[in-house]
Amino acid sequence: MISGVGDPRSALALDVGGTKLAAGVVDPGGRLLTWARTPTPAGIDAEQLWSTLDALFTSVIEKSGLEEAELAGVGCGCGGPMEWPAGRVSPLNLPTWLDFPLRERLTERLPGLPVRVHNDAICLAAAEHWRGAGRGRSNMLGMVVSTGVGGGLILDGKLVSGASGNAGHIGHIVVDTTDDGPACGCGGRGCAEAIARGPALVQWAQAQGWRPGQADATAKELADDAAHGHPAALAAMHRAGRALGLAIAGAASLCDLEVVTIGGGVSQAGPLLFDPLAETLRVHARLDFTRRLQVVPAALGQSAGLVGAAALILAADRYWIAD
Amino acid sequence: MISGVGDPRSALALDVGGTKLAAGVVDPGGRLLTWARTPTPAGIDAEQLWSTLDALFTSVIEKSGLEEAELAGVGCGCGGPMEWPAGRVSPLNLPTWLDFPLRERLTERLPGLPVRVHNDAICLAAAEHWRGAGRGRSNMLGMVVSTGVGGGLILDGKLVSGASGNAGHIGHIVVDTTDDGPACGCGGRGCAEAIARGPALVQWAQAQGWRPGQADATAKELADDAAHGHPAALAAMHRAGRALGLAIAGAASLCDLEVVTIGGGVSQAGPLLFDPLAETLRVHARLDFTRRLQVVPAALGQSAGLVGAAALILAADRYWIAD
Repeated sequence: MISGVGDPRSALALDVGGTKLAAGVVDPGGRLLTWARTPTPAGIDAEQLWSTLDALFTSVIEKSGLEEAELAGVGCGCGGPMEWPAGRVSPLNLPTWLDFPLRERLTERLPGLPVRVHNDAICLAAAEHWRGAGRGRSNMLGMVVSTGVGGGLILDGKLVSGASGNAGHIGHIVVDTTDDGPACGCGGRGCAEAIARGPALVQWAQAQGWRPGQADATAKELADDAAHGHPAALAAMHRAGRALGLAIAGAASLCDLEVVTIGGGVSQAGPLLFDPLAETLRVHARLDFTRRLQVVPAALGQSAGLVGAAALILAADRYWIAD
Repeated sequence: MISGVGDPRSALALDVGGTKLAAGVVDPGGRLLTWARTPTPAGIDAEQLWSTLDALFTSVIEKSGLEEAELAGVGCGCGGPMEWPAGRVSPLNLPTWLDFPLRERLTERLPGLPVRVHNDAICLAAAEHWRGAGRGRSNMLGMVVSTGVGGGLILDGKLVSGASGNAGHIGHIVVDTTDDGPACGCGGRGCAEAIARGPALVQWAQAQGWRPGQADATAKELADDAAHGHPAALAAMHRAGRALGLAIAGAASLCDLEVVTIGGGVSQAGPLLFDPLAETLRVHARLDFTRRLQVVPAALGQSAGLVGAAALILAADRYWIAD
């Protein structure tokens, strides 16, 4: 391992998503020294997407004033699924990359540097644990509630990867156990994601009479209307909060968690989501050790993806198990 | 740490439960060299219970031909809850011990030896991972389905303890998410344990017309009658299998498990339980990585509790985090 306590070198961090590409240089203390971002281009092929990413991070390295060889390594968060730890990615939100050898390409481009690629939700959890709302805790679930419901698990002080790097998929705990729970993108039914992801919230609320004709209605508008007392919008937020509460109660019991952090667009709704969530925990998290659970908003903003990607390199003892 | 690969020394293992006390000497390969068991005496005070346990393990050590000082240490599984890792125990099924300093007393009795106490369900999971059906896997949930539904988690090759030593409580994942799920001993509703524990199975089946007047009806009789086609008994087993399947689907998704082992009296029902469980997984465990999950019967029999207690000492690198 190249990084370590007292090592002055910084890491290149990348965040590859369906709407934006971001690159940054992060110092060993987790501070973002310099960064850049660009919308993910549409209608391009796999190599063009790679070139866009390459140009972005090349400019960021230049801006940082560091030589490539001075970097401690490259950490990259990317949408799943992926073959982990090989870093062959097939992001659902970037269909142009199908089985794209991202880790291999980064290694070729920046020879001699360790390169580590992990799920973007895992990187967000690592960031919140390293430098955010989970700092100092040993047992944490870091969640993202936006177009999907994902997460990453830190247990006994370390990021858990699981058999295939997929630990943390809180969104597929079943929270509607009736036979007619809503269909989920995973092929199952009644998953937390099928209820609490932004588009599902909107769809359900529209079926209840909220802005029924508006094709481009968003979860943000839904939260705004709920804040103004619209009954169907309020009911949708309540239903999502309950779904998340049930999933979190299960996770807290199974994993003996201290804290759950929740970020992502839907979580911006604040008490509209967190209140029914807390109410559900009061009913369903009743063991002594689950009653102590804290559920808090994520503390890091837009930089979280880059900070977490850097953690794969700069705090590898906690956030990277494979190589 | 005293134990280690190639260390010829054996550990004293203890299994303290509401119906029996067991002690054994386990060699570094996980083999039970000698052991003894006695029914847990009823109507005695805390010190008398301690004396019974002391007499039991003293005789076992003598029988083994080892000097006390030759032992690698003492591992002990005990019913929860407990203050962990301090080993102050308040077993629900042994009310005479309330906040009993079991680890401290064992340390006083066998000075110079490392002493480690953990939840009995955790010890069973450690045993199945070390020497049983989970051998060679890095991500496993070891479950027990009997008068309770408990378990232990092994992730990334190590036993997970969680914030207070309570990781593995699979029995309190909510699997009836309606507002009128059955009340659970934890104070919550709709937990897997509230449906699949033996007494709950029996109670539900009796309410459906199975052996309605028989006060001492058992889960074993229920399984036997289900095997003979009794509709209410079959329905009870199906309901329990579905409850376990829902909990396991959630755990597999959250923790990216390779294998789940299931032991305990209720699991002896075999396909009556495992078939509806598997059917539920086919509906609810649909992600690529959860479809690969294997659910298998526990491989170790009555010795599992002792083997797992010994693992806290003899394979401490994997099964003991605190000290």
